[in-house]
Amino acid sequence: MEKIKYNLVKRDKPVVLPEELGFGKIFTDHVFEMDYSAGIGWHNPVIKKLEDIPMHPASMYLHYGQGVFDGLKAFKTESGEVVIFRPQRHIQRINNSSKKLCIPEVDTEFLLHALMELIRIEKDWIPAKTGEALYIRPFIYGSEPFLGVKPSSEYKLIIMLSPVGAYYPEGFKPVKILVTDDYVRAVRKGLGDCKTPANYAASLLGGEVAKKQGFTQVLWLDGVEQKYIEEVGTMNIFIQFKNEIATPKLDGSILPGVTRDSVIQILKDWNMNVTERLISIDEVVEEYKKGNVVGVFGTGTAAIISPVGWLTYKGFEMTFNNGQPGELDVKLFNEITSIHYGKKEDTHGWIVHVENKEVEV
Amino acid sequence: MEKIKYNLVKRDKPVVLPEELGFGKIFTDHVFEMDYSAGIGWHNPVIKKLEDIPMHPASMYLHYGQGVFDGLKAFKTESGEVVIFRPQRHIQRINNSSKKLCIPEVDTEFLLHALMELIRIEKDWIPAKTGEALYIRPFIYGSEPFLGVKPSSEYKLIIMLSPVGAYYPEGFKPVKILVTDDYVRAVRKGLGDCKTPANYAASLLGGEVAKKQGFTQVLWLDGVEQKYIEEVGTMNIFIQFKNEIATPKLDGSILPGVTRDSVIQILKDWNMNVTERLISIDEVVEEYKKGNVVGVFGTGTAAIISPVGWLTYKGFEMTFNNGQPGELDVKLFNEITSIHYGKKEDTHGWIVHVENKEVEV
Repeated sequence: MEKIKYNLVKRDKPVVLPEELGFGKIFTDHVFEMDYSAGIGWHNPVIKKLEDIPMHPASMYLHYGQGVFDGLKAFKTESGEVVIFRPQRHIQRINNSSKKLCIPEVDTEFLLHALMELIRIEKDWIPAKTGEALYIRPFIYGSEPFLGVKPSSEYKLIIMLSPVGAYYPEGFKPVKILVTDDYVRAVRKGLGDCKTPANYAASLLGGEVAKKQGFTQVLWLDGVEQKYIEEVGTMNIFIQFKNEIATPKLDGSILPGVTRDSVIQILKDWNMNVTERLISIDEVVEEYKKGNVVGVFGTGTAAIISPVGWLTYKGFEMTFNNGQPGELDVKLFNEITSIHYGKKEDTHGWIVHVENKEVEV
Repeated sequence: MEKIKYNLVKRDKPVVLPEELGFGKIFTDHVFEMDYSAGIGWHNPVIKKLEDIPMHPASMYLHYGQGVFDGLKAFKTESGEVVIFRPQRHIQRINNSSKKLCIPEVDTEFLLHALMELIRIEKDWIPAKTGEALYIRPFIYGSEPFLGVKPSSEYKLIIMLSPVGAYYPEGFKPVKILVTDDYVRAVRKGLGDCKTPANYAASLLGGEVAKKQGFTQVLWLDGVEQKYIEEVGTMNIFIQFKNEIATPKLDGSILPGVTRDSVIQILKDWNMNVTERLISIDEVVEEYKKGNVVGVFGTGTAAIISPVGWLTYKGFEMTFNNGQPGELDVKLFNEITSIHYGKKEDTHGWIVHVENKEVEV
């Protein structure tokens, strides 16, 4: 791979982050970009000003949705170091998603290098308060201007960065979830286990209908029997039974979440009984009625841990921990954020340090 | 709705179409464009030069695939008139797709007017040979620059035009189709009945695997039982049994094709026994073995009628009409193209004439 070109913006004043960061609304000065053409491969890697992308109206992605993305985070630790959480795993997931979308894979080492270079250049954009982070959004889309249906022969990969606020500015707040069988997000042998725009397009209407009824998000059931729980909104889900913490197994229609994987590992470290298996919604209801469900929580890069306070299925509302965050939710959230901000030792090699040398071009 | 603005290109020489048009590679000078913003609605309709779209890297469509499109055709008749085939139905389908994608609907009359204005301005781009047409591609996508998952508050609608060649330049040629149960395109309660990029993204890998095995396209089975036939590639499918012409019923995961609908109507006009129902792939195989399958064909705007010469399911190859187009395939193709080119009376009100007045701005 060629060396990265640096076409950097000259800032005449230092970066000042607003008090309210929110999520995904503010973007840093630069993006990383590279192109793919059949016969040439990935080429032209460059870190350059974030600007509008000139896109041909016939770009295949605009019509046929051939794209993938991922989402990960960089943090400023207590000692001022810049670290990224499990970037290799996220980059590997990009390639896994790409395979199912007929998108050419990227060199994982090179992409990690590119990502770290971009973050190093944008380090002043990383907020430092606990809960805050630099959200990293790599995405790839088919750019060939052609209206026939086939895999594109040209692609663009972009990494953009967005400083994000704490997900729970007012404290750890449980959400209200609707279990729906009116809509299906994904089905086995489809794209459900890829981070691809199609899955998010498929989740919008169900989510909107739930919101109108006062719910935060939807818990999706499997596409075949509409019986087994799959994901909650854009997160993975865990059910804390009395003697078991269970999460749906990766059967091809569920996103293999990186936070999901981290939580499973941490629970194992704590010698807790964590299982990946089929969990029917009927089982959850039955065990709830018997008083055997201690709590429910979602996991994802944005929220890390999202306690579920209420779960409604066919008009039956289950309440967990009286609508307060569960003990385990808090413990997991603190454990993972402590690793993020360097307050706790990283025993699993999840943290990658970004070199703090001066930006030289 | 405001009046359309016309920012037209001054051509210094007349349009000369290349001998080989192909499909979806050549685009006319102009596009129609309009914008949507929450609180304002659709606004700023303009016919202007086809140019790259300046797209913010955080445009929601790039990440979450919230978009719809459609495809229809305009023809130059034998007497030199310009006509469009069933535009109202295509525009209604855009709105139907939009509803499921949480995209604001368009005023159907205004969009028809816009479409006709664009075609009137680009009339010199319409090829005149039989089989040739002006392909019309309207599409809408969420353009708000925001990385949160929700329906966009801003949209862009674009109509682009592409002169296309005859689908069968070497004559009506049957295709080889693989019936797959390795991949699922769509499932009921999902997006399968919408013309949305997600469905096409979901079809790519199955299609590529089939192509590597020497097939043209895939026949998709239903996502639940993987038993009932749904669509072939990007077309609807008809099975001609001895006493019945059957096509899968619209059960929520199949695109409601306009050509499908036209073929059903024409078969009814001909007093043939046409049915919309569940058709299992096992039924097709059994009836084939009994000698009761006369032929199989696909329908779609691009090909109109696409005879299927071979259908392979679990290693068993069925051949129809010795790999030649069936009598009915030819008859239907001729009937529909005769209506397109004004050689036959339009008894169903499918043809809309584009006014031939001079371009005035």
